[in-house]
Amino acid sequence: MDLNADLGEGFGTWTLTDDDALLAVVTSANVACGFHAGDASVMRRVCDAAAAGGVRIGAQVSYRDLAGFGRRAMDVPAAELAAEIAYQIGALRVFAEAAGSTVSYVKPHGALYNRTVRDDEQAAAVIEGIRLAGGSPAVLGLPGSRLLAHAASARLVPVEEAFADRAYTPEGTLVPRGEAGAVVHDPDEVVRRSVGMAVERTVTGADGSRVPVVARSLCVHGDTPGAADLARRVRAALEEAGVTIRAFT
Amino acid sequence: MDLNADLGEGFGTWTLTDDDALLAVVTSANVACGFHAGDASVMRRVCDAAAAGGVRIGAQVSYRDLAGFGRRAMDVPAAELAAEIAYQIGALRVFAEAAGSTVSYVKPHGALYNRTVRDDEQAAAVIEGIRLAGGSPAVLGLPGSRLLAHAASARLVPVEEAFADRAYTPEGTLVPRGEAGAVVHDPDEVVRRSVGMAVERTVTGADGSRVPVVARSLCVHGDTPGAADLARRVRAALEEAGVTIRAFT
Amino acid sequence: MDLNADLGEGFGTWTLTDDDALLAVVTSANVACGFHAGDASVMRRVCDAAAAGGVRIGAQVSYRDLAGFGRRAMDVPAAELAAEIAYQIGALRVFAEAAGSTVSYVKPHGALYNRTVRDDEQAAAVIEGIRLAGGSPAVLGLPGSRLLAHAASARLVPVEEAFADRAYTPEGTLVPRGEAGAVVHDPDEVVRRSVGMAVERTVTGADGSRVPVVARSLCVHGDTPGAADLARRVRAALEEAGVTIRAFT
Amino acid sequence: MDLNADLGEGFGTWTLTDDDALLAVVTSANVACGFHAGDASVMRRVCDAAAAGGVRIGAQVSYRDLAGFGRRAMDVPAAELAAEIAYQIGALRVFAEAAGSTVSYVKPHGALYNRTVRDDEQAAAVIEGIRLAGGSPAVLGLPGSRLLAHAASARLVPVEEAFADRAYTPEGTLVPRGEAGAVVHDPDEVVRRSVGMAVERTVTGADGSRVPVVARSLCVHGDTPGAADLARRVRAALEEAGVTIRAFT
Repeated sequence: MDLNADLGEGFGTWTLTDDDALLAVVTSANVACGFHAGDASVMRRVCDAAAAGGVRIGAQVSYRDLAGFGRRAMDVPAAELAAEIAYQIGALRVFAEAAGSTVSYVKPHGALYNRTVRDDEQAAAVIEGIRLAGGSPAVLGLPGSRLLAHAASARLVPVEEAFADRAYTPEGTLVPRGEAGAVVHDPDEVVRRSVGMAVERTVTGADGSRVPVVARSLCVHGDTPGAADLARRVRAALEEAGVTIRAFT
Repeated sequence: MDLNADLGEGFGTWTLTDDDALLAVVTSANVACGFHAGDASVMRRVCDAAAAGGVRIGAQVSYRDLAGFGRRAMDVPAAELAAEIAYQIGALRVFAEAAGSTVSYVKPHGALYNRTVRDDEQAAAVIEGIRLAGGSPAVLGLPGSRLLAHAASARLVPVEEAFADRAYTPEGTLVPRGEAGAVVHDPDEVVRRSVGMAVERTVTGADGSRVPVVARSLCVHGDTPGAADLARRVRAALEEAGVTIRAFT
Repeated sequence: MDLNADLGEGFGTWTLTDDDALLAVVTSANVACGFHAGDASVMRRVCDAAAAGGVRIGAQVSYRDLAGFGRRAMDVPAAELAAEIAYQIGALRVFAEAAGSTVSYVKPHGALYNRTVRDDEQAAAVIEGIRLAGGSPAVLGLPGSRLLAHAASARLVPVEEAFADRAYTPEGTLVPRGEAGAVVHDPDEVVRRSVGMAVERTVTGADGSRVPVVARSLCVHGDTPGAADLARRVRAALEEAGVTIRAFT
Repeated sequence: MDLNADLGEGFGTWTLTDDDALLAVVTSANVACGFHAGDASVMRRVCDAAAAGGVRIGAQVSYRDLAGFGRRAMDVPAAELAAEIAYQIGALRVFAEAAGSTVSYVKPHGALYNRTVRDDEQAAAVIEGIRLAGGSPAVLGLPGSRLLAHAASARLVPVEEAFADRAYTPEGTLVPRGEAGAVVHDPDEVVRRSVGMAVERTVTGADGSRVPVVARSLCVHGDTPGAADLARRVRAALEEAGVTIRAFT
């Protein structure tokens, strides 16, 4: 199982994610590329640290929305969106390559992630942007999303991910943020669910049913206090349960 | 002689440079990279057109200053500046390479161009950013500038340029914008001076003296009305005078 | 009949609207407030010119989206949107008052205008922002829009407007941009329709039917080449038809 | 003695200053206005809390530089700068007035603060912007600065401030950040110096000499961990020494 987290989500004087602590835990770093967070200096620093720690670098691409941290869905025309995605990947690639690594996958951030689950046009635009940027990175997304469907059509490797701290519907989609119980706050519960998803490939749904979850990567959150501690506990519990933690291939 | 011009200096709904007309005249396109102008869609379009027309693509890097069009000098710390330069080059490279071309040179824009003539720290930071971005592009700048000195030290090819429509001091530097007569507005005079600099390697200085100008590239302005017409006249006059117009090597 | 146009839609080095020419024609100036266009210097200049010319000043408020010129719908939470609207009005008020005038009305721009026709939450948020900013400005919008309904509930004066160059559905709403025939390009037709809406209070709908249009203000576009000329023709034709052109009260 | 601190220096998802804790200590809140920090929602929240707590509201105006947090000096032309200052004050005024308060003073932030100590043109431009915005707010600045000189010429009330945690030269100016010992880190020493400046109107200079400091306001920093605790200690020590803490008048 791969462990991924959002990193480098500071901007200028502001910090958010505890990048160094998380890089000691995860195997894949979703690095912000400047559109929702992450200025050039932050990107450089995170890429250097990720490469030094053997953590894979991915481009966490977003709508252009610093003020909203990329959490506000936007009706960006497809051609513009594709170009913006390519722009972000290209910018990050410079720092990844300077550190001796590469951008090995792409994961949309926030509202763009949610929108490309079902919005066919924007999902296709993100994939077009990835192709425009070249280099055949993998694409990290929700199982069953339009994003992963378009990734597969474009012969990019789709990588399904699960969420350690999010509630699931009986259908295997995420309970939308804003609904009661959407986020699992109890650390013990987060750890238990993570192990369940990795070992038994199921999770208890919001209605109490057993929901199948097929994932090659597990997302742990990085932008909350205690995030690094929780990530460490998740990783330790997974290893104790016999799960090998390594980057997807 | 190479002919270069600033291109792709629109942003969103706004346009500035007549990119298509200028691409039919120049041999090197200084493409804005999003920090003073040039969103991702504009960058993509200009790179596609430049590559299709056989025009070389350069990164016109800038301070982060859309509101000031990069024309306001900024005290950016060296490490930040280097990272910002690398970011811009990386973003542009994606569009250059998608078009089958590459970023073959870098030219600072506006206030950064002027500042790196004499500011050793910022000049070194720009060159560090270029090295960080990899790929060994040439560096376009003013003869005698700190920028070109640092480029040479870093084993990047320094390319001296002259300005078709700017007044020169007896020492061979540009009369600062804002001083009377800094810009030559008479088209006939611009053409005459361009031919003089290319053929005799001199220009009449602001004090009437003969000033030596050694340049491998001539900059024609793209952001004024009639810019493309004037560029065409300059090129025609140069060719008539026996000057071969081609990209520097 | 009031004539309104979008003005001050430049930003930094970029210009879009021919502000001086339009200020000689219209009675109400929708001044951009910095979120989709319009930096502080442009705002100051347009307010000074509007006040000098006796043209009423309105705040053309927008989503925060310079790169998309405010034309991309955004899911901004209500409280954030309200605060952003108030911010823009406050910024503009300074320049209006320095010029001896005031912000006498508010009109949402672009995607926010379209969205608040039907989106109850965002319409309410815009009105909350206007109330937060104080001063009881009028609210310019589409007849039947949620925006005008919320304006009336908040005891702000709702002002219905018609569009000189847009096609109407049989129900009296605008044919969405992007659909064929959404914009009327023939200047003679624009003039004819403007007079019809002002005098007979009807317009020919997209299906050929006679559509009633009740409006106290007519919007002429400012951001296209020839916009000022067309606006002049519309005004002249209206006056010739006996329509008094003056700001709504 | 007045106590002032920089507040509201978050942006979007990012926070920096512990606004609620500091508002319980200071008498004057320098509220960021969106150019170096402080989006509209933050501004609204801080103004509401300041007004509820009886803390005076000031506009902390800045260069337009989110990425650099306003800490990078910029060569902004005077007319542009004046308009940008007015824009920020107007935006903040809306939230101050909605909370039942007003913008009663203006204090430049970061690089603009430092630059207007000696740069006559920018100091004059800031004052012009304040006058443009109307309402005759006081101006907070360094004793002997060009800013305060221009404030006095414009019949605005100049308010000299001292810094609790900054080293002073024998001439009474601040030791520039970046030089060794520029910032006093020992909390006991900060408290001791604060009391000395308030009671004896002197401080020990960097060379050990006794330096006279005349100030009506004392600035405590808000953007460091433990800032609120230190501010509380400074206030308690001042009160214990018999200094009345209240807003300047």
